[in-house]
Amino acid sequence: MDTVPIIGGTGALGFGLALRLANAGVPVVIGSRDAGRAEEAAGRLREQLPDADARGLQNADAAREGPIVVLAVPFRNQSENLTNLKSVLEPGQILVDATVPLAAAVSGKATRLLGVPQGSAAEQAREMVPDGVTVVSALHTVSAHNLNDLSIELDEDIPVCGDTREEKRRVAELIARVPGLRPVNAGALEAARLVEGLTPLLIGVNARNKVHAGIRFTGLAEPRW
Amino acid sequence: MDTVPIIGGTGALGFGLALRLANAGVPVVIGSRDAGRAEEAAGRLREQLPDADARGLQNADAAREGPIVVLAVPFRNQSENLTNLKSVLEPGQILVDATVPLAAAVSGKATRLLGVPQGSAAEQAREMVPDGVTVVSALHTVSAHNLNDLSIELDEDIPVCGDTREEKRRVAELIARVPGLRPVNAGALEAARLVEGLTPLLIGVNARNKVHAGIRFTGLAEPRW
Repeated sequence: MDTVPIIGGTGALGFGLALRLANAGVPVVIGSRDAGRAEEAAGRLREQLPDADARGLQNADAAREGPIVVLAVPFRNQSENLTNLKSVLEPGQILVDATVPLAAAVSGKATRLLGVPQGSAAEQAREMVPDGVTVVSALHTVSAHNLNDLSIELDEDIPVCGDTREEKRRVAELIARVPGLRPVNAGALEAARLVEGLTPLLIGVNARNKVHAGIRFTGLAEPRW
Repeated sequence: MDTVPIIGGTGALGFGLALRLANAGVPVVIGSRDAGRAEEAAGRLREQLPDADARGLQNADAAREGPIVVLAVPFRNQSENLTNLKSVLEPGQILVDATVPLAAAVSGKATRLLGVPQGSAAEQAREMVPDGVTVVSALHTVSAHNLNDLSIELDEDIPVCGDTREEKRRVAELIARVPGLRPVNAGALEAARLVEGLTPLLIGVNARNKVHAGIRFTGLAEPRW
């Protein structure tokens, strides 16, 4: 099985995703700006999952390790990370963007969304990746807290946006490997501006109710892909 | 029990809401630009529910009939309707805005959201109602199709946004009268811009899957109000 590099894999969302993917038998590489911190995080992952195939590398090195690269960084750092990946990503690779432009990026509230000139963080990513790299937007609504606690059973939908059916399907297949996550085709990449808005909404619901809510599309027995 | 006027009650969403509220024992007044069409719709409702307390009136007359007024009109007509209601709505009334600024309003796609200068249709409504009238935003995600078919069991969440707790609670209590609809406090009125985005997202999911999906917050056993 292909290795999944996770850029920003030492953060709460990135590490949680690495943990859940590794727990599902997917080889992962945790990327970080700092190679030492990346390897330390991979070590923590292997402590929890001794059989996991998990390594830590500097982001740019990590991004070379697999065809589907997950970008799980705060919006404040998204542009910088994409600039650093420009000379690394290669045609045919898929970048899974999980970035949400929360106003917290500019010392505002995490319950508010910034206006991004391109329309969404995902569309900013599309503008910045090298030719031939496809951006798919996903994994905005799953709680980092829940991902990081393997004793919690996940049970929610993951909206997936992208402009090409084949790449969306490949990302959906990867997400579906994690028990309890059900990918749902949420349309073209521009629909990411609608999906990214779910995160500040959920942050508000979570704060008011002291929960870690996700999203479920009701009345959708078997999503088509 | 207070009567609930529904402005635009001859449309699919408005009529479906009237039907479900009436079925829950709530007296309703269906509003329309045309008094004859309003009374005709009320007649259709009473055919399905002979015991219903349902009347039809011109929108301006309807809006005087109860303390909580539901606005269920296409975005194209929202501003016009609010102008017409300016001399009618009175301090203390609550306007429940269910408007979604779909690009379909300007011959665009129903899977796209327009940018509204005030931030959302709900915030446009807040700008336009008379002083002392409170706008609460709700009922964007429930399928008009499902509302209109009483044989379909509803089972979904209704995000409710508003700036004052008391008015939000009163709207939540009304929504909770409809079996299968669970109101969830989704924050201040400005969060309506996040919730309104759920509608074009759902319209896309529905078209791809031939369903009538709604939204559920997972992991939220008992929403706090």
